[in-house]
Amino acid sequence: MKRFAMFALAVVCAAVALPASAQFAKSEDAIKYRQSALFMMSQHFGRLGAMANGRVPYDAAAATMNAEVVADLARLPWAAFGPGTEGGKAKPEIWKEQAKFKEHSDKLVAETGKLLVAAKAGNLDALKAAFGPAGASCKACHDSFRDK
Amino acid sequence: MKRFAMFALAVVCAAVALPASAQFAKSEDAIKYRQSALFMMSQHFGRLGAMANGRVPYDAAAATMNAEVVADLARLPWAAFGPGTEGGKAKPEIWKEQAKFKEHSDKLVAETGKLLVAAKAGNLDALKAAFGPAGASCKACHDSFRDK
Repeated sequence: MKRFAMFALAVVCAAVALPASAQFAKSEDAIKYRQSALFMMSQHFGRLGAMANGRVPYDAAAATMNAEVVADLARLPWAAFGPGTEGGKAKPEIWKEQAKFKEHSDKLVAETGKLLVAAKAGNLDALKAAFGPAGASCKACHDSFRDK
Repeated sequence: MKRFAMFALAVVCAAVALPASAQFAKSEDAIKYRQSALFMMSQHFGRLGAMANGRVPYDAAAATMNAEVVADLARLPWAAFGPGTEGGKAKPEIWKEQAKFKEHSDKLVAETGKLLVAAKAGNLDALKAAFGPAGASCKACHDSFRDK
């Protein structure tokens, strides 16, 4: 009885300790969520790239708006790669090399933060300088952890 | 020639005036984008509802985090309902009753803004009070503009 009570307490504590960000009703929701966040991020990132590469005219306000969304979204997908959520284009390596995966996601968060600072600087050169490293951080993670 | 030059200028101006937020390479991207934003929002909104309805313990920090994401995401889907992006579960009425649709989306942005203020207040009663009207603004729009 005492053992059961301790087990029950542990379960309750685990439920309390679980960050709300990690709560998905089912695995499919987690997969759909992370794919949604990454797709939206790619759309806004692409708009910054179009400016950085001169395909569309530079617009400081639009750059800031897009960089804000990118920086906000960059924090979100990772909680949706929890245990038991394997699937989609995510390679199984994600769950085997968690430290390396976290290094990549931390890098993206850092680089998109710098990209936002650069966008707010209000000049195209700053945006160009920060866009490359941010894009490289996407690619590095895809190369290691995303199926073609 | 003069007429062509003016037409060319008009095209250039339109391209410049187009908000970056409205730029989707193809209609499918716009549909996927708005569905992504609305799905992510529903996930975070659901976590706030679980707290407001007592299904999970109240956690002020998690409530604020979720309300921040909801308020951020609430601003995003609408640019993806541009001309020629009909499809998904979006009813054709969206493109016929644009003023009414905008009224609904503005209402959601306003209510999720209040929800964030309530979450930051750091008490469950404030969260409960703001959750209902925010949920009602989702439902009102779905009733008018989303296919079952």
